[in-house]
Amino acid sequence: MTAVLESLVLENPTKIVLLVLDGLGDLPSPERAGQTPLEAARTPHLDRLAPHAALGRIQPVAPGITPGSGPGHLALFGYDPVETSVGRGVLEALGAGLELQQGDVAARANFCTVDASGTVTDRRAGRIASEECARLVGLLERALPRIEDVRLVLKAGKGHRFVALLRGPGLAGEVSDADPHHEGAKVPQAHALASDLAAEKTARIVNAFTAKAAEALGAERPANAVLMRGLSARPHLRGYRERFKLRAAALAAYPMYRGVAQLAGMDVLPAGETAADAFAAAAARWADHDFFFIHVKGTDMAGEDGDFDAKVRVIESVDAALPALLAAKPDVLCVTGDHSTPAPMRGHSWHPVPVLVWGRYCGADHGARFHEKAARAGSLGVLASKDLMAVLLANAGRLDKYGA
Amino acid sequence: MTAVLESLVLENPTKIVLLVLDGLGDLPSPERAGQTPLEAARTPHLDRLAPHAALGRIQPVAPGITPGSGPGHLALFGYDPVETSVGRGVLEALGAGLELQQGDVAARANFCTVDASGTVTDRRAGRIASEECARLVGLLERALPRIEDVRLVLKAGKGHRFVALLRGPGLAGEVSDADPHHEGAKVPQAHALASDLAAEKTARIVNAFTAKAAEALGAERPANAVLMRGLSARPHLRGYRERFKLRAAALAAYPMYRGVAQLAGMDVLPAGETAADAFAAAAARWADHDFFFIHVKGTDMAGEDGDFDAKVRVIESVDAALPALLAAKPDVLCVTGDHSTPAPMRGHSWHPVPVLVWGRYCGADHGARFHEKAARAGSLGVLASKDLMAVLLANAGRLDKYGA
Repeated sequence: MTAVLESLVLENPTKIVLLVLDGLGDLPSPERAGQTPLEAARTPHLDRLAPHAALGRIQPVAPGITPGSGPGHLALFGYDPVETSVGRGVLEALGAGLELQQGDVAARANFCTVDASGTVTDRRAGRIASEECARLVGLLERALPRIEDVRLVLKAGKGHRFVALLRGPGLAGEVSDADPHHEGAKVPQAHALASDLAAEKTARIVNAFTAKAAEALGAERPANAVLMRGLSARPHLRGYRERFKLRAAALAAYPMYRGVAQLAGMDVLPAGETAADAFAAAAARWADHDFFFIHVKGTDMAGEDGDFDAKVRVIESVDAALPALLAAKPDVLCVTGDHSTPAPMRGHSWHPVPVLVWGRYCGADHGARFHEKAARAGSLGVLASKDLMAVLLANAGRLDKYGA
Repeated sequence: MTAVLESLVLENPTKIVLLVLDGLGDLPSPERAGQTPLEAARTPHLDRLAPHAALGRIQPVAPGITPGSGPGHLALFGYDPVETSVGRGVLEALGAGLELQQGDVAARANFCTVDASGTVTDRRAGRIASEECARLVGLLERALPRIEDVRLVLKAGKGHRFVALLRGPGLAGEVSDADPHHEGAKVPQAHALASDLAAEKTARIVNAFTAKAAEALGAERPANAVLMRGLSARPHLRGYRERFKLRAAALAAYPMYRGVAQLAGMDVLPAGETAADAFAAAAARWADHDFFFIHVKGTDMAGEDGDFDAKVRVIESVDAALPALLAAKPDVLCVTGDHSTPAPMRGHSWHPVPVLVWGRYCGADHGARFHEKAARAGSLGVLASKDLMAVLLANAGRLDKYGA
């Protein structure tokens, strides 16, 4: 179907906005008269759009599947989130704000504790503080700037976690973990998962790194060794320009979303911190792009915190800023989320996500408001998230007829 | 799934009617209090069926994809509209009322203008009148009745367009266009797209035809050459008798729909001009068939014209004629469209199409009427058009249980 879709793409001067409120979908809260944050929020500007919009729900991956942010966004961007694999190391690196170049291999890494025999006694090195992690990452960077012709780029994360990027010629992501995944075992040697010189070289570099890191950390306690897992190369995705003939821009305050957008071939623009900042930034670069992906993180964070009121406030702040975006006159505006993050669950969930598509030929549903319940009766029905792009292109008049 | 479905097919004496109102689906019209033509139409007979019917919506190809009539009907007939490719030339030939035999290769063709050096200066020969086109087609028919052992069957179309059918032994559709697709270039030689004697022979015939046609037209102005594109062979589809154990009949006033039905192995019956004619014709041949595909073109034409009132009138005329069809006592009656043709869009669209399935075990939705909004809440949900046939067979008791 992807090939058919791409063969139908037309160019025209329309502008499409995909406004993603991360983790937007929620569940009725018994403490709030069965309302969801989207229902409880005062959203006068969305309320003005809703009657003229088509509503529905999107399913990020498949029924019952709770997506991470990577698959959630890849699907919104029109990639099959199952076929399009972006490795854990790569997602972690993008989330850490590392810029990935073609050929880079990324890994999730962490400090651990090993005993004199080399047996892992604590995979998380006593959950050291982030400051300690940063100090140790600095130590490793000075001790191990490169191995063979491969440069090591490290970035400290929270607690015991860090990201390691291998940058050099002839590397590959098909390498097993240098991580026993449980205590009481030695750190295993990484090995090539493909009979491939690049994978063998990468395994050799990983093993050299874990060995030399343990030497460099020898005097440290409790973090005296490292583990690496999720090794993966920057994937080559066919981008928005090639697939959809769209000059796409991404406005996102958090690195991971900028990173995934970059994988999809979007230009990353400075977005500021708030929705109002992002809307102003999009409007300022309106002429240069045909498609604007705008990411709002606060809804997901509030959901993860189980904070109904905070989620309501983020939604209200996006709504309050909306007139600036509408003033730029998008031809098609889509408001949705990458997944649900219900406040009562304090985490991502599998529930379909409400979606609003507004445009000249969207087919107005005449609903009063945009929220989970209204979305259930909407004319868009339930779509796979990966099919949403086709609907947005169609609404923008950017798809030719299929067949005579 | 197709193999599973077909393995379950049973035979029984039931009669199924698939009544297709071409382009039935529409959008709420702001000038008509947000109603669609189906809502605005007075449809007392459909209104009597609706409470006892199951409603829903069908998606012809995929979300966002606007189908042509070919894919729209193939899907309704239970073929995957992406996997089942019917070439552009074949659809054009069917639409022109040419009867395709197994082995025929069809092409879309048009008259063009070339200068003394053979460069195309106008791909449409100044958009000559249809009468002029008919005269020139007659001239070519007399000058070029056959090339080698291949007979040429030509049929004039609108303006500069015509259809060319190659009929003879050992031909194939895998041949490139003899059309530069833009002005300022010479007419390219067609060539085989498969290393296959039949494709090579077909390319040779096409090239001989374009060369000899240019000679025959040498003295004409502005139409002094021809272009050919979309070469394709009549596909071999497994038909209704083989797939569904149904003796299927098609009643359609327009050639293209008769043609696609014929590809699906239906018997084409004389249908007359109006819905009333078609219903009477079906009733007259009731005993000879198990399945009746009845096609009404007017809804699509009104939609293409942007004429809301005309679409309402066509729907009302179908409704007024319905008692004659119901008097024949179909066991299952399905009313739907091959795609939406919203009047405000003056063309086909991607919007799902309302569908009504009436039968003894359809599961009455108890809705008041049949229209786009009621269909959104219907018990059939959203189906892929290609899956509708299974639902009709099931309602007719013509599908066995799957597994013990």
